Amino acid sequence: MKKGCVFGTHRVVEPHGVLPQAAWRIDNSMEIYDNEILIDVSTLNLDSASFHQIKEEAKGDPEAIKETILKTIQTRGKQHNPVTGSGGMLIGQIAALGDKLDRDIKPGDKIATLVSLSLTPLKIDKITAVNLQTAQVDVEGQAILFESGVYAKLPNDMPEKVALAALDVAGAPAQVSHLVNTGDTVLVLGAGGKSGLLCLHEARKQAGPDGLVIAVARSEAACQRAHSTRLADVILSPDATNAMEVYNLVHEATNGKLADVAINCTNVPRTEMSTILPAKNGGKAYFFNMATSFTAAALGAEGVGKDVELIIGNGYTQGHAEHTLNILRENETLSAIFDSLSE
Amino acid sequence: MKKGCVFGTHRVVEPHGVLPQAAWRIDNSMEIYDNEILIDVSTLNLDSASFHQIKEEAKGDPEAIKETILKTIQTRGKQHNPVTGSGGMLIGQIAALGDKLDRDIKPGDKIATLVSLSLTPLKIDKITAVNLQTAQVDVEGQAILFESGVYAKLPNDMPEKVALAALDVAGAPAQVSHLVNTGDTVLVLGAGGKSGLLCLHEARKQAGPDGLVIAVARSEAACQRAHSTRLADVILSPDATNAMEVYNLVHEATNGKLADVAINCTNVPRTEMSTILPAKNGGKAYFFNMATSFTAAALGAEGVGKDVELIIGNGYTQGHAEHTLNILRENETLSAIFDSLSE
Ligand SMILES: NC(=O)c1ccc[n+]([C@@H]2O[C@H](COP(=O)([O-])OP(=O)(O)OC[C@H]3O[C@@H](n4cnc5c(N)ncnc54)[C@H](OP(=O)(O)O)[C@@H]3O)[C@@H](O)[C@H]2O)c1
Ligand SMILES: NC(=O)c1ccc[n+]([C@@H]2O[C@H](COP(=O)([O-])OP(=O)(O)OC[C@H]3O[C@@H](n4cnc5c(N)ncnc54)[C@H](OP(=O)(O)O)[C@@H]3O)[C@@H](O)[C@H]2O)c1
Repeated sequence: MKKGCVFGTHRVVEPHGVLPQAAWRIDNSMEIYDNEILIDVSTLNLDSASFHQIKEEAKGDPEAIKETILKTIQTRGKQHNPVTGSGGMLIGQIAALGDKLDRDIKPGDKIATLVSLSLTPLKIDKITAVNLQTAQVDVEGQAILFESGVYAKLPNDMPEKVALAALDVAGAPAQVSHLVNTGDTVLVLGAGGKSGLLCLHEARKQAGPDGLVIAVARSEAACQRAHSTRLADVILSPDATNAMEVYNLVHEATNGKLADVAINCTNVPRTEMSTILPAKNGGKAYFFNMATSFTAAALGAEGVGKDVELIIGNGYTQGHAEHTLNILRENETLSAIFDSLSE
Repeated sequence: MKKGCVFGTHRVVEPHGVLPQAAWRIDNSMEIYDNEILIDVSTLNLDSASFHQIKEEAKGDPEAIKETILKTIQTRGKQHNPVTGSGGMLIGQIAALGDKLDRDIKPGDKIATLVSLSLTPLKIDKITAVNLQTAQVDVEGQAILFESGVYAKLPNDMPEKVALAALDVAGAPAQVSHLVNTGDTVLVLGAGGKSGLLCLHEARKQAGPDGLVIAVARSEAACQRAHSTRLADVILSPDATNAMEVYNLVHEATNGKLADVAINCTNVPRTEMSTILPAKNGGKAYFFNMATSFTAAALGAEGVGKDVELIIGNGYTQGHAEHTLNILRENETLSAIFDSLSE
């Protein structure tokens, strides 16, 4: 077997010198290097910002969505949405392991990759189903995981697709657990979505009974989900792209004190200021939303003289997979919501 | 006078509901609202990422650069580079103050705005000079500062253009002073540039003699500038867009320990992984570079399983203007470099 780079740079086709995530195109031939893992893929879980964009463009037509996905993979060697820049993750069975690897997995084991599809070499023979609700796409095909690539064995105490949906957003609750302190006022935007619900749980847990947890959810269904968890003290329904509306409502709900931590779990662009304005000076704005613009956040905060720490949601945090699955194990309401969302 | 919104939303033309920074176009008519400040502008300081992009596209031709700038201002009502998304700031004299404002400035005072040009209503009659080295553009025109807009009176103990150059990047050193702890290993990418040099100073000061400060500078001149400050323990010269090269050099310089804090002060795209890879797990990556991609940072870190806090450089931090001017006052070498860079 050929020797590969830990980070998979041996698969970068263009441009030269970058890592696979930054590459425009990577080599998706399915002959593995000595430090790679070959996976028979069963389902892709597109990240919500990416799927939202593809669905909008395809006007909701499943066939057009399939075409877009296949075209991206054919052009780039990976499911790396050229508009949003984001990916998602996948589940599948181990097909083979490179010679050099000494791992606790063997062919036949089921795993979820915890690295973005935006850097995962992927070859899809056929898309057998597209689920418009869950952004999950059943496929026949193969993928490659690099030596530095993180993965989790699929747990056997919950449905595969529930685990997949939760693991896709595992970075968020794990990081929120470090950001929120006892007694904090915490704002969660997109609180009725998957990452939003998990962050609500974590915000409540860390802020405690003296904290104030404010959920922003849009549709009736999303509000209902957030409400049913009983995790939030206040539920608001502004449009998260309207910063002034969000700001005014949070201002009112906090008697002008604003939030210590504001968390963006929506999946749409132009929500930067709705996260920054309602945060207090010295507070934190955490962006898990992949449709966030770097400059809009940096210059938007400057523009209104807000001394807020602006944090990019890292998809990876140590122990994030177990952390997230444990939330579903400890919170039955959330687990039931994830069940229903995965249908 | 008409009543205005604190954040200047009364000037947003499109799209509806956003703040001025996020707007595609704002109203740049120069009749002020009751809470605005009218400024006679003398010089624009384009931010380095924006100017770099405009200069590249114009192949270095000053007339073409002028045209691009005028066209942007005409289309958008502000100097908001549509490619990089960034702006810069300006110096000028107060021309008038809205009725409602009670401020410590009066017509005739010289100020620098500390909010981005990407949200500042601007009308330029004429560009009289473009300085290709400093990214400073002398103009005849007017601008408006919103009630929430931050500004600084120009100090009288240093040349105006030195203050302008330093104040443009004032967010960086002020934030770095909070990020670095005693004994830390700190990496500064773009260490020979303006924000890079100020961050070197702050990194050294906070890390102390037991810390390790590593400078990455590219050109001979930039290395020389970084070297002459005597602030760095090590100076490296990889191409900051080559993540593996940067990683390997930092790995070597730190005996594999990597950096506690990695600071990106370059002005070019595709440098996210050069900041993330050399940071240790549990460390911090701070992106001041306006050419940073949100998704490349978030998914790139995930892709290599790096548990690093990813921070967006907020252009504003409390006290950042005084903080930065004081660095030039306390460090004569830096002050001399800024003098020479401003010519
Ligand atoms: N950083 C990372 O590594 C990483 C990893 C995975 C995913 N992500 C990103 O995280 C974000 C959330 O993902 P998810 O899976 O949790 O998404 P999700 O389940 O689809 O939830 C998104 C939520 O945003 C709400 N929303 C959308 N537009 C809104 C608006 N204008 N106002 C108010 N709420 C609005 C939606 O409300 P309705 O249901 O009412 O429409 C929905 O509840 C996405 O951007 C995704 O790409 C990041
Ligand atoms: N967050 C904010 O609010 C804010 C405010 C202002 C500015 N900024 C941004 O901060 C960044 C730095 O601004 P600045 O004024 O300090 O810029 P600057 O003075 O122009 O310095 C940029 C430095 O980056 C170096 N560089 C460029 N390409 C490189 C490469 N491939 N490898 C290694 N080094 C490279 C340059 O080196 P050479 O000289 O050798 O080419 C230069 O020294 C810019 O992106 C700017 O837009 C952000």
